[in-house]
Amino acid sequence: MLTRTQHLFDDATRVTPGDSRWQGRTSPDYWAFIGPFGGVTAATILRALLEHPQRAGEPLALTVNFCAPIAEGDFDIDVRLVKANRSTQHWCVELSQDGREAATLATAVFAERRPSWSQQQAKMPDATPFETIKRYPDVAAAWIRQYDFRFIEGYTELRGGGSKVQPASAFSKLWIGDRVPRRIDAPSLMAMSDAFFARIFHAKGEVVPFGTVSLTTYFHADADDLAKEDITHVLGIADARIFHKSYGDQSGELWSPSGRLLATTTQIAYFKA
Amino acid sequence: MLTRTQHLFDDATRVTPGDSRWQGRTSPDYWAFIGPFGGVTAATILRALLEHPQRAGEPLALTVNFCAPIAEGDFDIDVRLVKANRSTQHWCVELSQDGREAATLATAVFAERRPSWSQQQAKMPDATPFETIKRYPDVAAAWIRQYDFRFIEGYTELRGGGSKVQPASAFSKLWIGDRVPRRIDAPSLMAMSDAFFARIFHAKGEVVPFGTVSLTTYFHADADDLAKEDITHVLGIADARIFHKSYGDQSGELWSPSGRLLATTTQIAYFKA
Repeated sequence: MLTRTQHLFDDATRVTPGDSRWQGRTSPDYWAFIGPFGGVTAATILRALLEHPQRAGEPLALTVNFCAPIAEGDFDIDVRLVKANRSTQHWCVELSQDGREAATLATAVFAERRPSWSQQQAKMPDATPFETIKRYPDVAAAWIRQYDFRFIEGYTELRGGGSKVQPASAFSKLWIGDRVPRRIDAPSLMAMSDAFFARIFHAKGEVVPFGTVSLTTYFHADADDLAKEDITHVLGIADARIFHKSYGDQSGELWSPSGRLLATTTQIAYFKA
Repeated sequence: MLTRTQHLFDDATRVTPGDSRWQGRTSPDYWAFIGPFGGVTAATILRALLEHPQRAGEPLALTVNFCAPIAEGDFDIDVRLVKANRSTQHWCVELSQDGREAATLATAVFAERRPSWSQQQAKMPDATPFETIKRYPDVAAAWIRQYDFRFIEGYTELRGGGSKVQPASAFSKLWIGDRVPRRIDAPSLMAMSDAFFARIFHAKGEVVPFGTVSLTTYFHADADDLAKEDITHVLGIADARIFHKSYGDQSGELWSPSGRLLATTTQIAYFKA
């Protein structure tokens, strides 16, 4: 059953319009280790752009660079339309607090998604149905409790416990939905693209200090496509290719249950191990 | 044999230092369809940052958004250090011509690459040796003639010819080196990460109007690592997952012949088909 009242995710990503400067506020509901869950920060930036009166077209690409921790409280979002042409818009966004240097630096591309030859080269991975899998248990981090994670492969235990034999696979396959079901839209895809647990936790079999440095997500479905899907969870896969000199990568895909590739994502993250 | 004179790539990516505004000039040697080869533009931006007196650390991530065509001639590169801390730097770069709106918008992360637990999860794809494969033939586009492409899989004919049976695989595996051998460094990896032929050409079996919109490359080897490799070509693989409503993606990897993953890359591109 979908909630009829405002969803926590919509509260958490709420922005107050300005001209070039918008305002937001961190949400305790989506708090992570030392700041807000990066996916919600990214979704908030996307939402400021989606709601901007100058915005034209659909979100195509969003890159978010996490420069510094965001403290609990208010923040400003400076949005700038760097270049627009007939079919695309290029935005630059800086999130800051109390007039200090940027804590988050982002670029976004919006585009008219005109009809074209269409071909999905990738195949949806096999997946046990969502309904038949137990939800990931609650852990201390608030943001994790806002999601309904149902692991098919690459389950990892975040509450401590023994280290796995190293090096373990960094691959995971899981259903991801909002804990209180909410229809999947571009902001929730943006947030979910950062909702995979750190690949280093999987590879090392333990929780180590970790922080996403740069996150890029591409959208392969527009608002019409997503409305047609009308879904509240996606199948996510994520993997890492390398951990080296304190940084590791992640690549991921978000699929609709019907087999449509909705978004692809990649990130590079700091770790201490 | 390595050239002892200045390499064309170094000419093409040459920048004149400024404080926050640097200068460069398009190179006829790396000209593509309607502007400079995007990889050289990205490498030029990276080089301006690498040569910047405030730069600290190694290139970790570079995202380049191609907002508008760059005309033949001079351009300005406005570089801004948005945020720096003990171990990372976040830069924002805009390339423009004649004081007009930005033609290219980029963000970069530089980082100290401190020793850590190190693990390469991905395995190098099997590859026929570079020396045993014929070089890709010369075509009209100048930039292609600056590279030595040696296809192992996913060869495509850019000079016309019959359309392949659709939909064909978008996967390619090939060696990539500079035509005049040049030791692989971060700028050349950056350029090579955009040197794969458009995935849509492979999938459709024909050349169609195409342009990269956003390109992100992560560096998994630092200057020391690259110096130890001491190589002049890399093994590249690239694939696409989806073409939909005028945009398609690409993911790629660049490997040293010794089996080290040097860089990973992803892009989203416009096509007309």
